[in-house]
Amino acid sequence: MFVGVDLGGTHLRTALVDAAGSLRHLRKVPTDIASGAKTTALRLISECQTQVRMAREAGERVLAVGLGVAGKVDRNQGKVIFSPNLLALNGYPLARELQHALEIPVILENDANLFGVGENWVGAGRGLSNWVGVTLGTGVGGCLIFDGRLWTGDDLGFAGEIGHMVITPDGPPCVCGLRGCLEAHASGRALMEGIAAAVASGSLISGRLHDLWQSGWLTPAAVYESALAGDPLARGLFRQLGWALGLALAGVFSVLGIGHAVVGGGVSAAWDQFIEPLQASLAAHSSMLDRKDAVVLRGQLGDHAALLGAARLAALEASTPS
Amino acid sequence: MFVGVDLGGTHLRTALVDAAGSLRHLRKVPTDIASGAKTTALRLISECQTQVRMAREAGERVLAVGLGVAGKVDRNQGKVIFSPNLLALNGYPLARELQHALEIPVILENDANLFGVGENWVGAGRGLSNWVGVTLGTGVGGCLIFDGRLWTGDDLGFAGEIGHMVITPDGPPCVCGLRGCLEAHASGRALMEGIAAAVASGSLISGRLHDLWQSGWLTPAAVYESALAGDPLARGLFRQLGWALGLALAGVFSVLGIGHAVVGGGVSAAWDQFIEPLQASLAAHSSMLDRKDAVVLRGQLGDHAALLGAARLAALEASTPS
Repeated sequence: MFVGVDLGGTHLRTALVDAAGSLRHLRKVPTDIASGAKTTALRLISECQTQVRMAREAGERVLAVGLGVAGKVDRNQGKVIFSPNLLALNGYPLARELQHALEIPVILENDANLFGVGENWVGAGRGLSNWVGVTLGTGVGGCLIFDGRLWTGDDLGFAGEIGHMVITPDGPPCVCGLRGCLEAHASGRALMEGIAAAVASGSLISGRLHDLWQSGWLTPAAVYESALAGDPLARGLFRQLGWALGLALAGVFSVLGIGHAVVGGGVSAAWDQFIEPLQASLAAHSSMLDRKDAVVLRGQLGDHAALLGAARLAALEASTPS
Repeated sequence: MFVGVDLGGTHLRTALVDAAGSLRHLRKVPTDIASGAKTTALRLISECQTQVRMAREAGERVLAVGLGVAGKVDRNQGKVIFSPNLLALNGYPLARELQHALEIPVILENDANLFGVGENWVGAGRGLSNWVGVTLGTGVGGCLIFDGRLWTGDDLGFAGEIGHMVITPDGPPCVCGLRGCLEAHASGRALMEGIAAAVASGSLISGRLHDLWQSGWLTPAAVYESALAGDPLARGLFRQLGWALGLALAGVFSVLGIGHAVVGGGVSAAWDQFIEPLQASLAAHSSMLDRKDAVVLRGQLGDHAALLGAARLAALEASTPS
């Protein structure tokens, strides 16, 4: 058995995963990063200890732990380099502490890369040689699967960061400090900022989205519901999201000479609102790729992709002599 | 011995290359594509037969031929799919005919990919695991070297096509039919069009560049000479080229998690005019990559990169049982 961990800005999720990709004992607690890195680390250790104990009670042994964190990570040092949503963890030797406490190998990886490992193992990417993965959440993560394996590039702490590819050099500001990144166009945050901008410009002065925005209860899911109900502003924001994602994928496909993408993450629940503009934009911004060779798939593992990927990576590393 | 061939829009070049990467008997004749595909094919066969004969006279045997063509190619079928600069060759089974005539295996590949194989073998990319190559000529070609080998993606007939990555969605038209491709900003053609636009707008009404443009003798090399002499328009065009290339490389580095590029092609002779704006743009458009990890190298093999790469690929394929 392996423990998969997905440490996000809001929730810390853990699960036991067997060698066939079955997920058991899913646990979810608040990350509570506001209490500081040490508190989060202790909570992480405690959650993993619980999973190890539960495995033992079932007569199983945990061989390794896969730990996914949103951000740039140093796999060899087992520490987080930079995480915009978990700033308190920057530079924190999270995986090393966990490994020390559990006395089991811990593999640290970026959560979007683990989405890729998970979907590649038992999801939408199964059987595909080469594809780019995109996770649409509050921000935009990404990964690359080449020859059926996770691509880690030059081991600089990141790879597959399509979210911070600049697609419109004079575009809207991104949380990373640049302008016009894919993430600034095609994320949960971009949807919310689209509503905020409409309020600021005076074009949105009433209605459900306005009221949610004013009360501070606006979510990407609420924007999606409004789009489903026919709201033109919400629909336009999803069209813009699809346009931006198609443009970015066209560039990635042209550079890589590949034609498959898998799109997941919470915002991908709004699939019906953005897939058509995405495909139109992908075709409109591709001159090398035949339209028939461009395939955009929806992730199949939902919230569990990174958890499963974490466990899978742990299993792969545990079986590789180092 | 191996024969390397570089079939461009203007010249057909061939050479004998030994296993150590030494180039002998370089021959260069006009491609003369205006006379049609058949004439070009016959000339290609004749040039290669000459090389085979010269090898034989030196007591050597040619084991395989590597054939580089600018454009999208079908390696397995040995034919050119689409070549913007050699339109008459579209769909032509060039490599198959050459192989039939010579009775020696012929490997067909895109010329920018062969630039990559050559620089990887005995040039600027030697010893680097992962890098992106860019050839700045009339157009912009590109290639990817992953784990020290040429990346061919899903074998769709192209890979590494950074030239047709859209970097400004509302940008200038590209010959490929899109708008705002890197090639539309950062190629020999873009430099010439920058001069043409200045004439059209009335901002360039006299001087050397104006006169060259008017007489039809304007070349990218002339724009470079003017930039060296301090001409502000020419300097600005090279700054724009560097800006565009830095922007595109930043996106590729972010997506791939790598930090090395090798830039070659005829227009790279103007290195001193664009490398500083390129590096500034690369840093300004990167949020994941540390500045110290971004390295842009100049190709070392000049005009011979693709010829050497063609021979090398032929050697690699000849030694691989299929």
